[in-house]
Amino acid sequence: MKLKFKLDYTDKKTMARLGTISYNGKTYETPMFMPVGTNATVKTLSPEELKEVGSGIVLANTYHLWLRPGEDIVAKAGNLHKFMNYDGPILTDSGGYQVFSLANPKDINEDGVKFKNHLNGDSLFLTPEKSIEIQQKLGSDIMMSFDECVKWPSTHEYLESSVERTLRWAKRGKDVKVDNDQLLFGIVQGGEYPDLRQHCALELVKMDFDGYSVGGTSVGEDKPTMYKMVEYSTKYLPEDKLRYLMGVGDPIDLIENTMRGIDLFDCVSPTRLARHGHAYTKNGKINIKNSKYKEDFTPIDDTCDCYACENYTKAYVRHLITNNETFGARLLSIHNIYFLHNLMKEIRKNIKNGTMEEYRDNFIKEYYHESK
Amino acid sequence: MKLKFKLDYTDKKTMARLGTISYNGKTYETPMFMPVGTNATVKTLSPEELKEVGSGIVLANTYHLWLRPGEDIVAKAGNLHKFMNYDGPILTDSGGYQVFSLANPKDINEDGVKFKNHLNGDSLFLTPEKSIEIQQKLGSDIMMSFDECVKWPSTHEYLESSVERTLRWAKRGKDVKVDNDQLLFGIVQGGEYPDLRQHCALELVKMDFDGYSVGGTSVGEDKPTMYKMVEYSTKYLPEDKLRYLMGVGDPIDLIENTMRGIDLFDCVSPTRLARHGHAYTKNGKINIKNSKYKEDFTPIDDTCDCYACENYTKAYVRHLITNNETFGARLLSIHNIYFLHNLMKEIRKNIKNGTMEEYRDNFIKEYYHESK
Repeated sequence: MKLKFKLDYTDKKTMARLGTISYNGKTYETPMFMPVGTNATVKTLSPEELKEVGSGIVLANTYHLWLRPGEDIVAKAGNLHKFMNYDGPILTDSGGYQVFSLANPKDINEDGVKFKNHLNGDSLFLTPEKSIEIQQKLGSDIMMSFDECVKWPSTHEYLESSVERTLRWAKRGKDVKVDNDQLLFGIVQGGEYPDLRQHCALELVKMDFDGYSVGGTSVGEDKPTMYKMVEYSTKYLPEDKLRYLMGVGDPIDLIENTMRGIDLFDCVSPTRLARHGHAYTKNGKINIKNSKYKEDFTPIDDTCDCYACENYTKAYVRHLITNNETFGARLLSIHNIYFLHNLMKEIRKNIKNGTMEEYRDNFIKEYYHESK
Repeated sequence: MKLKFKLDYTDKKTMARLGTISYNGKTYETPMFMPVGTNATVKTLSPEELKEVGSGIVLANTYHLWLRPGEDIVAKAGNLHKFMNYDGPILTDSGGYQVFSLANPKDINEDGVKFKNHLNGDSLFLTPEKSIEIQQKLGSDIMMSFDECVKWPSTHEYLESSVERTLRWAKRGKDVKVDNDQLLFGIVQGGEYPDLRQHCALELVKMDFDGYSVGGTSVGEDKPTMYKMVEYSTKYLPEDKLRYLMGVGDPIDLIENTMRGIDLFDCVSPTRLARHGHAYTKNGKINIKNSKYKEDFTPIDDTCDCYACENYTKAYVRHLITNNETFGARLLSIHNIYFLHNLMKEIRKNIKNGTMEEYRDNFIKEYYHESK
């Protein structure tokens, strides 16, 4: 089955959009946050729990699944859906992000990237074609083109040639894509340079991808720079295709980038924060390990109606996290992912009402409240 | 609310019994296996999952909860039920087992036991009275008397005086028990010596406990010795009271000791084995990490209808365990606990049918099959 996107509405004051994804007999609203299941499992959660907290698309990492268990085993299981028992939509990244973090600059050439397997040190080589071939075996519903993930800051000169290579790589990946139900997204790079972002976006659009991602953010830049990178990209993208901002999950960034025309977000934050005992609340992040929660028999967040908040107290979750009991990380993961899904729901409501700017200002006031 | 036990039936050929526990508007059948929730959580599982796999009584460890979060915090939460959100029956041990494993022989005296806190090395002292006081604050439904857990083998001489002290400690614990709905069990010690087991059992029965445990097993002795220890104890215990064999969970031991009159069992095995990638099957234990399961797309156990076996394959669970994904340990924990609950169901059926001996012989043939 093929995932379909329909743009329903565009905000009059901002670039924010409302859309609908249809997949496997179900519909999902955008803008949407997608939890990350690196190893074909969203850490600590079952597929049923993901659905219960409101997840739609789930992300899986091509690099990790390539190494373990290997794309052939996933293919033999049927596909990623069958392997991990998730019948909602699945998006895979290209592996580029991990590969570039493991490679030396000198090991990047026109053909692809040489790098060391982080598990055993073996030398590996990933190319745009190979990335698509792996993703096709995984059988995800949305695939990513293999792009160069450039560090920040980089010079205009370096990025100029990198963008050209990323465009050539996008074309090469598209050329090996078999005609089937999997969507393939192109990725807009170009750092913080408006001319390069524009050029990259327009060239990708000419190639007619099924959707477009904004890459090269969340690599150490400050928030205003990130927002500019997004703006410089989305304004050249077609209205009727999905736009995905990769690796961004901070609540305020979901709001700000929705206002810049993004439909999809992913980030490991909600589950990673959970494992370290952190929880999102309307009044900012809290660290449940803080001793002030030792005898706090109230929910993680009074205003939340997730499974964790409806059934457990801060004192109990603190006890679990302090004792490395994985049920604690599970409860906080449920809460954190629910929080982000709920935030997206609020965002969608405010797009509909034309109140995104007021919503953002109020959110900032509550979330970063100084007295907390 | 008070937990009540009713003996329904006694096997004609063996000492096996069928009974019913009533608690909080629900009934549970015995013999029963009780999963262990050391830190007020059965590792990796939610209370809902415990109910789904068929758990009734859940065990929690007094020693661990005394240290963290502390019995006063649990009491402030209401009790253990409220703290961990489990409304089924809860049994607590006395803390003795952990304390004796941390103490030097010279630090055991008539008053109690001096030992070092395993978390921070602090010197602590536990007495029979203190153990009951902690368990009362935890608010479990079944409490254990504080007994001396003697290593195996020990001399008749040592055990003779130890049993006398255990009896004095049992009395001291009973004396501080407040009249309420919590049951208190006496613990039969005496090693492998029939005269000491008999003496201990009869003296405890004189004190009229709410139920009786068999202690001093699962400390390194061979299986025939364990079975004798149980036989030497149960035959002196009253028919109408629950009998609990502490720390025993190997499938064959559940069968053999049921045939010797035991109603309740507990063990960390199903969850501990799960974390190490081991699963019970009718044909014996398997190690899911074995490379032969890499492309095995069949359930953990073909004959099992637990959530894990109905939805996931060996290949997937192997992948999760290999990658230290906690969802893997959760799936195996669900399977292993379900396996033991199902085994108890089979046992109860065979008691009813008067076929325990045949059942045991067949089980051994299948479980220890040489070709596996």
